Amino acid sequence: MFLLSFVALTFSYLALAHEPSPLQDFCVADPNSPDFFFSGLHLMGNISNHLGSKVTPVFVTQLPGLNTMGISMVRIDYAPWGLNPPHTHPRATEILTILEGTLQVRFVTSNPDNRFITKVLQKGDVFWGLFISNAMWVMDMLWLLLAFSSQNPGAITIGNAVFGANPAIPADILAKAFQVDKSVVDQLQAKF
Amino acid sequence: MFLLSFVALTFSYLALAHEPSPLQDFCVADPNSPDFFFSGLHLMGNISNHLGSKVTPVFVTQLPGLNTMGISMVRIDYAPWGLNPPHTHPRATEILTILEGTLQVRFVTSNPDNRFITKVLQKGDVFWGLFISNAMWVMDMLWLLLAFSSQNPGAITIGNAVFGANPAIPADILAKAFQVDKSVVDQLQAKF
Amino acid sequence: MFLLSFVALTFSYLALAHEPSPLQDFCVADPNSPDFFFSGLHLMGNISNHLGSKVTPVFVTQLPGLNTMGISMVRIDYAPWGLNPPHTHPRATEILTILEGTLQVRFVTSNPDNRFITKVLQKGDVFWGLFISNAMWVMDMLWLLLAFSSQNPGAITIGNAVFGANPAIPADILAKAFQVDKSVVDQLQAKF
Amino acid sequence: MFLLSFVALTFSYLALAHEPSPLQDFCVADPNSPDFFFSGLHLMGNISNHLGSKVTPVFVTQLPGLNTMGISMVRIDYAPWGLNPPHTHPRATEILTILEGTLQVRFVTSNPDNRFITKVLQKGDVFWGLFISNAMWVMDMLWLLLAFSSQNPGAITIGNAVFGANPAIPADILAKAFQVDKSVVDQLQAKF
Amino acid sequence: MFLLSFVALTFSYLALAHEPSPLQDFCVADPNSPDFFFSGLHLMGNISNHLGSKVTPVFVTQLPGLNTMGISMVRIDYAPWGLNPPHTHPRATEILTILEGTLQVRFVTSNPDNRFITKVLQKGDVFWGLFISNAMWVMDMLWLLLAFSSQNPGAITIGNAVFGANPAIPADILAKAFQVDKSVVDQLQAKF
Amino acid sequence: MFLLSFVALTFSYLALAHEPSPLQDFCVADPNSPDFFFSGLHLMGNISNHLGSKVTPVFVTQLPGLNTMGISMVRIDYAPWGLNPPHTHPRATEILTILEGTLQVRFVTSNPDNRFITKVLQKGDVFWGLFISNAMWVMDMLWLLLAFSSQNPGAITIGNAVFGANPAIPADILAKAFQVDKSVVDQLQAKF
Repeated sequence: MFLLSFVALTFSYLALAHEPSPLQDFCVADPNSPDFFFSGLHLMGNISNHLGSKVTPVFVTQLPGLNTMGISMVRIDYAPWGLNPPHTHPRATEILTILEGTLQVRFVTSNPDNRFITKVLQKGDVFWGLFISNAMWVMDMLWLLLAFSSQNPGAITIGNAVFGANPAIPADILAKAFQVDKSVVDQLQAKF
Repeated sequence: MFLLSFVALTFSYLALAHEPSPLQDFCVADPNSPDFFFSGLHLMGNISNHLGSKVTPVFVTQLPGLNTMGISMVRIDYAPWGLNPPHTHPRATEILTILEGTLQVRFVTSNPDNRFITKVLQKGDVFWGLFISNAMWVMDMLWLLLAFSSQNPGAITIGNAVFGANPAIPADILAKAFQVDKSVVDQLQAKF
Repeated sequence: MFLLSFVALTFSYLALAHEPSPLQDFCVADPNSPDFFFSGLHLMGNISNHLGSKVTPVFVTQLPGLNTMGISMVRIDYAPWGLNPPHTHPRATEILTILEGTLQVRFVTSNPDNRFITKVLQKGDVFWGLFISNAMWVMDMLWLLLAFSSQNPGAITIGNAVFGANPAIPADILAKAFQVDKSVVDQLQAKF
Repeated sequence: MFLLSFVALTFSYLALAHEPSPLQDFCVADPNSPDFFFSGLHLMGNISNHLGSKVTPVFVTQLPGLNTMGISMVRIDYAPWGLNPPHTHPRATEILTILEGTLQVRFVTSNPDNRFITKVLQKGDVFWGLFISNAMWVMDMLWLLLAFSSQNPGAITIGNAVFGANPAIPADILAKAFQVDKSVVDQLQAKF
Repeated sequence: MFLLSFVALTFSYLALAHEPSPLQDFCVADPNSPDFFFSGLHLMGNISNHLGSKVTPVFVTQLPGLNTMGISMVRIDYAPWGLNPPHTHPRATEILTILEGTLQVRFVTSNPDNRFITKVLQKGDVFWGLFISNAMWVMDMLWLLLAFSSQNPGAITIGNAVFGANPAIPADILAKAFQVDKSVVDQLQAKF
Repeated sequence: MFLLSFVALTFSYLALAHEPSPLQDFCVADPNSPDFFFSGLHLMGNISNHLGSKVTPVFVTQLPGLNTMGISMVRIDYAPWGLNPPHTHPRATEILTILEGTLQVRFVTSNPDNRFITKVLQKGDVFWGLFISNAMWVMDMLWLLLAFSSQNPGAITIGNAVFGANPAIPADILAKAFQVDKSVVDQLQAKF
């Protein structure tokens, strides 16, 4: 039991080191174990939330067999006008393709340009992700598949990290950082 | 001409270096250029061939914007009883999910075990690829999406490399390597 | 044309610079050239701005000799109550030490915890940076030195990327992303 | 002139991607332990087998002290007309030199070219291995030394993996993969 | 207890593998623990020794939280005419800036050139270190800050390694290596 | 016992961090060009010099085809009592085997231990190199083959770098660094 968790630990920390060349064929003893594959990515995620979108990840947490494989996959569902709020992935690049629907992808380049770029993707279009915060906005029912160059890409959702931290970042600091009245920050923090 | 090969070289070196952390947001000057995204992955590949399968790659060759991104995507279509012959990818791990149909994935572990493992995948199942030759066999019409942890994963198709090399590997060598009569090798080479 | 390939080249050099072991002693022909060293990090930055802080970077842009060295240095000055607004570095870890003054460092962990952590640093304290957005707030005149594990760590300043993008991200998208009234977003965008 | 500097540049970037950098001098407690060195590579391997060749590896399995050193060494002996059957190393590049005899090295490039290249090596010639399957064929008694850029390069011997898997890959699949009659596959599988 | 040391072990070995992209935000359970930050780098080191210099490191040994962060910091103090003897860092590049005083930095390039380069650095000058042995010589009271691209850069001080090894390298070998009379070596070894 | 196996485990996974993965089969256009292979490693080097040893390298400089292969090979010849003076390789680990003769290998660990370790190697013994300066001393005629985990491992020969720099390091600095009379340094510098 302990040995297993130890091995798991070792593997997961090693994952980055292993890209792109794992030293073994696979890391699970039994190819018939649930650690070895994952089921259900064809199922639509529950999009009945205020954002109208749902991410279904298949990271090393969901599929332990990905340990040392340096890759993972994700399904994202959107309701019409659904949104994937501004976020960034600190540990991976991504590639995606539209399975159904139309997606207006928006992203912003890093400092100093902070250039805002937008593109409408149709079914079958392939797009690759960036390291910077990006917002996605859909025009109709949509789902897509996305892959990451890491078994554990991580994510920082701007709203949650800045306005939904626990405990909260003092409002006066954010007021100064965003150059707005503290009451504006209060409204933002109230939502997270 | 020289510039092209030079750029090609540069790219390949880049690919080595960038994993897992590209140093820039993207490598194309114009996000509206065709280098920046790819269209048509929703289109079924032409499976009317003797293997009954078709691979549609989106590597750095098809989508130059993937340069330094360390990731790529592929669509594979199969006819009923279609086959993706034994092959190996020297430069990447892979992850796939079944969009439609049922796939019987088969693979063999590397030396010394050469353990043969097989698994039937249904729609929505996620499976990750190995570094060793594997054969896929489908039970009905199928398509899937696959991602690689490299912008240029490469491939060695056993049959083509061994029996279809150009010029041909002398039959007597292969006869000794596979411990069969030269006529058996002749039959194999005749097909490639 | 040449400029483009030059830029491409530059990227490739940078991308490789992350490896711990450069292949040459240095990358400049003349150790007496300005490319080889940098002067003036002892000079206080101009902190007369609304944030009351100033970053003076010594990245590969300022010191070309850093090329392939995978490291860089920064000076940051703060006015009393100065602020370094929430930001993240996509390509590096950081380490810093306080030369003068008292710094209240604040940071938030990545998803799903978004744990808010704060610590007061005195002169001589050493702290190391994280991959996630963090806000710094000082109690008095301060300056510090900071090093990055990259010659070009990059930065995403949340406010600038989200509310100061150019052109602006449509206010209705941000209103939905942050679950506030569009007028709140208008106030935020008006400042960037 | 430009070409030279270009090549020089290219090399230095490349090398960056390749450099290993262990974090300690060595990984064994006792430099006098058998883990620390290996004896007997001067001894000829037993070549009385149907291939007329014998590989004597010094990998991390044989020499635990190689741990984290990212390198290993191998001796190969050949009888006249001995053969090292088609194989590939998934995790390393190799370099070899002929100590005695003449070796006709043959290899095939990866897809799509599958270009067949052959070269006759004399005593003292140095050759470096590729990532693709290659067959070696000797004209007389020979031995050579080979080093890998990995402590555990791994190997996939085509014949064993494809025709000697355990349990066997169904003959009908291989028959389709290699486009031959099932009886041909039966002959091949019978040998492994 | 054991688990902690186990994790620490795992992390420290992993550190190089993770540069430049750790897989987690940080490696300590408690941000208030002493593992998380370090105090006292503002304190002058004790320079009352025969070299007139003192190195105060903040490596992973002193600041366990640096584990997997791939970076570290050092303070060096010099008495007037103090010296940092010839040494090399096998596992990192370095960058430094002068906080007070004037430093004459001297270094030698690797084989075959062994080019000797010297430069006088004033307060505020930034210089980056090389992989080769270098001697520093100061003209007056000085202190500086230095960062390494590794949490454990390591060091080989030529004098200590060659003339101060324990047990001693036989004097006749060093006499031949340095082409001097054994008595010269005896004098050198007597000092270490 | 468990701890040992745990350490072994950790190490073996780490080795992966070292392994590069070239993105192409090879980097030369013409496999028949001299760039593609090297001849003459069977020829004894000229050992009629004061050290009684000769290094014959096959690095990327001698064999351009090694480009991106991350490996290289070297032959070293020794006269009886020949010596390879103290040196270090900043960019590679090494592995060697004795082809003929007896070699007494000596090396010193890095700071702080500077532990001196020596071992007598016979024909057929395999030994792997460290990152620190080491002296080799032979008892009779000898030659060996050595491989590096880099296409360009580099070398710093202590004597040449410290006492043979060009221009010379001022004798008074070295006198202080090695704590000896300036006349001792003069004798040392006179030889290089």
